[in-house]
Amino acid sequence: MNYCSHCGHTVRFAIPDGDDRPRFLCDACGTVHYQNPRIVAGTLPVAGERILLCRRAISPRKGFWTLPAGFMENAETVEQAALRETREEACAIVAEPTLYTLISLPHINQVYMIFLGDLDGDFAAGPESLEVELFEETQIPWDELAFPTIERTLRHFFDDRRRGTFELHLSQIGREERERYFGSA
Amino acid sequence: MNYCSHCGHTVRFAIPDGDDRPRFLCDACGTVHYQNPRIVAGTLPVAGERILLCRRAISPRKGFWTLPAGFMENAETVEQAALRETREEACAIVAEPTLYTLISLPHINQVYMIFLGDLDGDFAAGPESLEVELFEETQIPWDELAFPTIERTLRHFFDDRRRGTFELHLSQIGREERERYFGSA
Repeated sequence: MNYCSHCGHTVRFAIPDGDDRPRFLCDACGTVHYQNPRIVAGTLPVAGERILLCRRAISPRKGFWTLPAGFMENAETVEQAALRETREEACAIVAEPTLYTLISLPHINQVYMIFLGDLDGDFAAGPESLEVELFEETQIPWDELAFPTIERTLRHFFDDRRRGTFELHLSQIGREERERYFGSA
Repeated sequence: MNYCSHCGHTVRFAIPDGDDRPRFLCDACGTVHYQNPRIVAGTLPVAGERILLCRRAISPRKGFWTLPAGFMENAETVEQAALRETREEACAIVAEPTLYTLISLPHINQVYMIFLGDLDGDFAAGPESLEVELFEETQIPWDELAFPTIERTLRHFFDDRRRGTFELHLSQIGREERERYFGSA
């Protein structure tokens, strides 16, 4: 951020009076520009013994497999966001979604919320997917998953299915784990 | 938003190519300025038969009672945000917090996440609170609560306590309910 989005003046990055962390400040109009984490909402669609994955047609991680998910938009609920992303990326409907994983990623300012539910009807690749397919547990392309949040959600699911009980999993993924996942330093 | 925060040029509000909703666009540098909902994280601290509330020292709803909660910051987890707000507003610690209510407010682009847990030790009014007190159910100032999310969370809590079982409550509050709450049209 270089300029005030309200008045166009240059901003500076400093701790405002009465605050305890730096913000982008405009000395001309007085606006404090807060920046906050974004929610990524999606679903884990289940079809009998199989689950649905999408192969990404766009960056980042183009060509890798993911659950249908994306940034929550203004003017919608978390559940609406998850179902919209499922519709857009997999042309699919998930019935009776329940919140299943909630994963904070503090180093990239994101919070993932994935809902579990039964796939209702057909599916197809939307414009942001190269292909959409159903996978048995033994067929999951573990080495070609797009994000560590997706791997974690799938591992919870198959573990819970073996145990016969599904519950909300709240966790976080730190920088080290993420770097290990992507193989970068 | 009037100016591009990246290059300072004026922005326009239009639907980008390949998108389906209007965004603030900069024709000079090409930046699309996405705007997304913010998370409000907080706690419902329990001390035996009583629960903790803070009376707000700041706008909005100055003088009204609330649970300790506030906007999640970058570089923290949802749980860390909830505990930080509890420390800041009530000088209090909540032990073993579990996610209890998750409430979308699509008309104001917020998602509330309130954690339930036992108050651990003392408490006091932080700089954003006029006073902090413990309340029995019969003492709750229902007509002086700051926000409908707070009332809903407290009603869930007392209902669940009577039933003897606490579970995650996921819901939404729409514009009509919010206007009814604040008594404005």
